[in-house]
Amino acid sequence: MNFVIERLRRTTDTIIGADDLRERLDSGRPLRIKYGVDCTAPDLHLGHAVNLWMMRQLQDLGHRVVFLLGDLTTRVGDPTGRSETRPVLTPSQIDANAASFLEQVSLVLRTDPEVFEVRRNSEWYDAMPVAELLGLFAQVTQAQLMSRDMFRERVAAGREIAVHELVYPVLQGYDSFAMESDLTIVGSDQLFNEQLGRHFQQRLGAPPQVVITTTITPGIDGRAKQSKSLNNYIGLTDSPRDKFGKLMSIPDELVEPYARVYTELPLETVAALADSAGSGGPAARDAKLRLAAAVVTRYHGAGVARAELAAFRQTFSERGRPDEMPSVVVRGDVATAFDLLRAARPDDSNSELRRLLRQGAVTINGVRTDDPAASVDLHADVVLKSGARTWHRITRQ
Amino acid sequence: MNFVIERLRRTTDTIIGADDLRERLDSGRPLRIKYGVDCTAPDLHLGHAVNLWMMRQLQDLGHRVVFLLGDLTTRVGDPTGRSETRPVLTPSQIDANAASFLEQVSLVLRTDPEVFEVRRNSEWYDAMPVAELLGLFAQVTQAQLMSRDMFRERVAAGREIAVHELVYPVLQGYDSFAMESDLTIVGSDQLFNEQLGRHFQQRLGAPPQVVITTTITPGIDGRAKQSKSLNNYIGLTDSPRDKFGKLMSIPDELVEPYARVYTELPLETVAALADSAGSGGPAARDAKLRLAAAVVTRYHGAGVARAELAAFRQTFSERGRPDEMPSVVVRGDVATAFDLLRAARPDDSNSELRRLLRQGAVTINGVRTDDPAASVDLHADVVLKSGARTWHRITRQ
Repeated sequence: MNFVIERLRRTTDTIIGADDLRERLDSGRPLRIKYGVDCTAPDLHLGHAVNLWMMRQLQDLGHRVVFLLGDLTTRVGDPTGRSETRPVLTPSQIDANAASFLEQVSLVLRTDPEVFEVRRNSEWYDAMPVAELLGLFAQVTQAQLMSRDMFRERVAAGREIAVHELVYPVLQGYDSFAMESDLTIVGSDQLFNEQLGRHFQQRLGAPPQVVITTTITPGIDGRAKQSKSLNNYIGLTDSPRDKFGKLMSIPDELVEPYARVYTELPLETVAALADSAGSGGPAARDAKLRLAAAVVTRYHGAGVARAELAAFRQTFSERGRPDEMPSVVVRGDVATAFDLLRAARPDDSNSELRRLLRQGAVTINGVRTDDPAASVDLHADVVLKSGARTWHRITRQ
Repeated sequence: MNFVIERLRRTTDTIIGADDLRERLDSGRPLRIKYGVDCTAPDLHLGHAVNLWMMRQLQDLGHRVVFLLGDLTTRVGDPTGRSETRPVLTPSQIDANAASFLEQVSLVLRTDPEVFEVRRNSEWYDAMPVAELLGLFAQVTQAQLMSRDMFRERVAAGREIAVHELVYPVLQGYDSFAMESDLTIVGSDQLFNEQLGRHFQQRLGAPPQVVITTTITPGIDGRAKQSKSLNNYIGLTDSPRDKFGKLMSIPDELVEPYARVYTELPLETVAALADSAGSGGPAARDAKLRLAAAVVTRYHGAGVARAELAAFRQTFSERGRPDEMPSVVVRGDVATAFDLLRAARPDDSNSELRRLLRQGAVTINGVRTDDPAASVDLHADVVLKSGARTWHRITRQ
């Protein structure tokens, strides 16, 4: 059954307990996969979906995702990646958020009861005597909890850690025991908490869960990781058009990781797209179109993706393009950007053409091009715009 | 009602909330005095009794001591002054320890229901949902808890703090709210935890308890504070004889603090005893006898104290003393140790007499004396022993 681990590897960062995973997959028993979330208002993005798609692969093999709402902890607030104490939520807010969560999750996961189960951690904590909770606390040290990156960063920044936040990882860890988790697939920021899960399972005599952490890619700005506050993310509930547009806006160097992590394109195709993106200009533009189409296909199907591709060209690539424009005929299958400019503007000096390029006044098939040597494929007609309002259609001889 | 605070002042170190105390005493309402203990095997000593006697004074004015057994926390172990995690106790061990505690406490406190009440903190924690406990945790920061001396010392010593130990002060603090404490009288090592009590009472809308910390005196070795492991303490359940003997063994400089803190002797008497102790020799011995008699009187009555005084003289002060011994008559009301030796051993040289003193071979009324100038009161007969077996009775002319 190593093929499962092999398939997951594409988006796997680390596996804690790889031997256990192999053994459990070999056993043929359906595994219980912990998918723990807090109950604040969700806004799942492509980054979250990486984990969901891995779970979906396992569902397709008969394993069961246990969607665990951390409603107990939400009732008292909890620490977040933003290192802020979240507000306490009312039960009806929690219910509304949970419903929204399930709706978003169902864009990727199967939610039929065969392979999907919803639990709340209040199920066990509401029944747990305080003495038992203190008994759990006795099995962890203060230093262990404070070693968590997020806490250390907060201390370094002189910010406070409320005690309920400090103990939150203990609860998240015990959840794994209570729900009999075999495996959980999380972002690396959750590794600490989920390793506490292993700790409690072992202490309490249960087999420890396997923890897989996934590759995290930066947001569409190419810098910080995807987050709502930075508005640099692609949401699962974004329209196909928005997904397409945002993907067209990413820096060239994100084409490779996005294609690898956010699509199922064959890895050879990913490598080819990476090459194209590396050469910039229209080739990079084409690579992004391919990427955007693959992502939209994954969530909305091939038909929608094709329609978005056409719409994108129309709306963004050729904005302001006149219906009629002068034609220029050139020889060969490929040409450089400079060659095209030279052919279109025979009266301008070379230095004048270079200045246009340098100033970003040149677009080829809607893509701004500042490299005179950028290579352009001439198998189809090419639209060249130079300066504010000068358009030419380039046709191969 | 300031006279109450005045009376307590003798053994008071600090008062947190003195104005509140004055106001509440003035109100005429019986106050609820928190006396919180864990449920490990008790061995109350004179140091603990300082607090108990203060509570007893308040009981005699109609106030109520609430003896609070921290049974919840004992069930999971808790941090101690010894900076060690205590073992978990079974319910029957807890009951046995609680019974023993009450027995020892009743040596000082009144236990009639008018002014005494027994509670267990499991009463509120067994009924508390985990979410509510986490809500308490949300009102304290990690840094606040870690500022506790004991924790800082542990961290400095590279020792671990289990998380249940870290949160123990939160529970001890909330106890004050749950039992409606007006006042608690504790050793200064408990100040931190009881201030958390004030914190929670205020947060939860209740008037904060007054915290009185008491003077801590060293153990009978004059160094460390009284502890069972160092065997340097005087237990409340020690026999009158053991109490008497241990008090006779203390260093001279402890006579003053012990008399001030462990007896109700008038402060002028305490000052006089301090003077006597300061002059060493038989005077210091007499001061200790007076101290020992006062302490034994407090716990066992004047008759027992008199009998112990006589027995002590017989057993320790005059061990090996013959029934008959030569008499020496000297002039005056007082004399120095050297004068007495000179009179008793007329044939020895001055240097020989000094050598005897220096070697500790001289006892006067059972007290070893090495100071030639030590002053001896001659109003009653004095027994002088010099060398191994030479005894004289000194009589005033």
